[in-house]
Amino acid sequence: MDAPAQPDDSRFGLNRRITLPQPLMLDGGTSLDNVEIAYETYGTLNAERSNAVLVCHATSGDQFVASQHPITGKPGWWSRSVGPGKPIDTDRHFVVCANVLGSCMGSTGPASLASDGQPYALRFPVITIRDMVRAQIALLDLLGIERLHAVVGGSMGGMQALSLAAHWPGRVDRVMVIAATAAMPAQNIAFQEVGRQAIMADPNWQGGNYYGTGTAPDSGLAVARMAAHITYLSEESMHEKFGRRLQDRASKTFGFDADFQVESYLRHQGASFTGRFDANSYLYITKAMSYFDLAEDHGGRLAEVFAGTKSRFCLVSFDSDWLYPTRESRKIAHALNAAGAPVSFVELSAPYGHDSFLLDVPELDRVIAGFVG
Amino acid sequence: MDAPAQPDDSRFGLNRRITLPQPLMLDGGTSLDNVEIAYETYGTLNAERSNAVLVCHATSGDQFVASQHPITGKPGWWSRSVGPGKPIDTDRHFVVCANVLGSCMGSTGPASLASDGQPYALRFPVITIRDMVRAQIALLDLLGIERLHAVVGGSMGGMQALSLAAHWPGRVDRVMVIAATAAMPAQNIAFQEVGRQAIMADPNWQGGNYYGTGTAPDSGLAVARMAAHITYLSEESMHEKFGRRLQDRASKTFGFDADFQVESYLRHQGASFTGRFDANSYLYITKAMSYFDLAEDHGGRLAEVFAGTKSRFCLVSFDSDWLYPTRESRKIAHALNAAGAPVSFVELSAPYGHDSFLLDVPELDRVIAGFVG
Repeated sequence: MDAPAQPDDSRFGLNRRITLPQPLMLDGGTSLDNVEIAYETYGTLNAERSNAVLVCHATSGDQFVASQHPITGKPGWWSRSVGPGKPIDTDRHFVVCANVLGSCMGSTGPASLASDGQPYALRFPVITIRDMVRAQIALLDLLGIERLHAVVGGSMGGMQALSLAAHWPGRVDRVMVIAATAAMPAQNIAFQEVGRQAIMADPNWQGGNYYGTGTAPDSGLAVARMAAHITYLSEESMHEKFGRRLQDRASKTFGFDADFQVESYLRHQGASFTGRFDANSYLYITKAMSYFDLAEDHGGRLAEVFAGTKSRFCLVSFDSDWLYPTRESRKIAHALNAAGAPVSFVELSAPYGHDSFLLDVPELDRVIAGFVG
Repeated sequence: MDAPAQPDDSRFGLNRRITLPQPLMLDGGTSLDNVEIAYETYGTLNAERSNAVLVCHATSGDQFVASQHPITGKPGWWSRSVGPGKPIDTDRHFVVCANVLGSCMGSTGPASLASDGQPYALRFPVITIRDMVRAQIALLDLLGIERLHAVVGGSMGGMQALSLAAHWPGRVDRVMVIAATAAMPAQNIAFQEVGRQAIMADPNWQGGNYYGTGTAPDSGLAVARMAAHITYLSEESMHEKFGRRLQDRASKTFGFDADFQVESYLRHQGASFTGRFDANSYLYITKAMSYFDLAEDHGGRLAEVFAGTKSRFCLVSFDSDWLYPTRESRKIAHALNAAGAPVSFVELSAPYGHDSFLLDVPELDRVIAGFVG
């Protein structure tokens, strides 16, 4: 591997895509050929190649962490945290963010073409969080990054960070895990199953073979997104934001229109999601999350997973996050303590529920800046 | 009105149905003719007609509070609380339980025939919780019950109890409200909207006109039920009951079958619900709940709603209920205190979440028995 540190290297920059030269072996026992990884890099890799920070995205996120989204036109999903002078400072760090395997923003997923020239659809193998990380490790190999300065992620991104630290312990110095878990709790599995059932109940899903038909299971995907979106917010933040306020009207309609602001907000969230996300990708990514159980091969003994780790860890939870509550982070902290790993753990107070990691929480900025350094 | 107290009165007993002689005026400004109310009574109305207890059912409940369900064959939904020697003792009390207006177990709802001989479907008017209670007050008139000894309800049943106490204050002595709210919070409106969207997204819904087509929006209704069901349980109870245990298999399938017990449990809940419930009824009933705001006409001042009430109140919440949490009951207690009404309020510790009011919580039995007397 030879990775020039020059910023004019074609592997570096926005909107990159690379094909893995080797088949990607998967936890399910199969492998994938010609895996493409879509990614972006920000900042400059130093001569020692020691300043790389891998940012891992959440369920519906993508590689556009700090650049404009090509479909929505919105700023990058974490542009408040990644950029020059930001908590993850691209003046000093070389940030890599890749679209996860199974997603739909350029990395290989169910909508990609298989070797027969047809979309994989449900022929795409069911993947795991570790498989997602495998693909990113392969990308780091191609970029010449042997050891990350840090890996940082919230929600599903945090699970990837944990998986990387656990399974590739020699490849990262600092591990930052925000609003995540080491094993998906039953309630979250249940919510994810509702979303999958909503998609698969949509006749336009057609067993996953809707590509090229001119229709897609948009209704099902919208319902899935609506249900998930509720879980990302706190009851308090929904109350503050919407309460029982009516939408553009003085009184109730006594019909099935969206009377309340919260109803029309949710409908909008559902509908707009279908414009940028593939329903089959939603199935695969939520299934990977439902499968996530880092200590599965260790009889549930999480401390064993991290035995001998040389990484430093920082865990963050939010007091209003009921989807990945503080107790999930605490379990990880206890396991890391038992493994003798350096770990700091903080529960931040923020009103926005699980979504707090994406929103205006200045204390989070300070924790990130302090830990990533 | 003349209601003989004899148990052989044809108006009394199981599986009764009665047609209201007058049109039922509705909050939406319209009225309904020939409203039928399906109901059951248990026990004997005393000569003074002073021992009647109205039990109000929840969203998916029905009049079969203490008798076998005609479709599922299961015992009545509250047979643990209603019956001879039970907390609501039918040896001493005359219990009435009616299927709510808009439902589908015999009372008039969207599946009922309108005057043109066709099902109402979406021509059925959008109703409110108060409309449901209006129908029950009309039933009580026909049964010769001027004043209830008590009204008791959990969840949506509790909202009916509150509405009855607020709008017909002279007609009830004791009001027991379990796991309910005086105004539907935004988060619950949001979950209800997801359920409605799931139903309306099902092509078999056909704008509500699916009666007689041989199909029904079962997939949408099942998804709605699955999403709602999660909210009825606590995270702890789901963890205890299912954890991450696999369903009838030794390892993950790496497919989209139900790998986990919680997934197959939810699928079963969704599928079995479609066998006993009408999707349009689900729309109307959840809309009535979303609309519920007892102090709406009083600028949100709940104490005004109960000004001058002569009833005694008992409020119960459960510490694991995140759908109708204790703070909702506390608001009601404060309002009743401000109105000078006698009120007792207890938060019970039970692990089952919102569903606790239907499950084995001996302390609840004691509170009910103590209050209903």
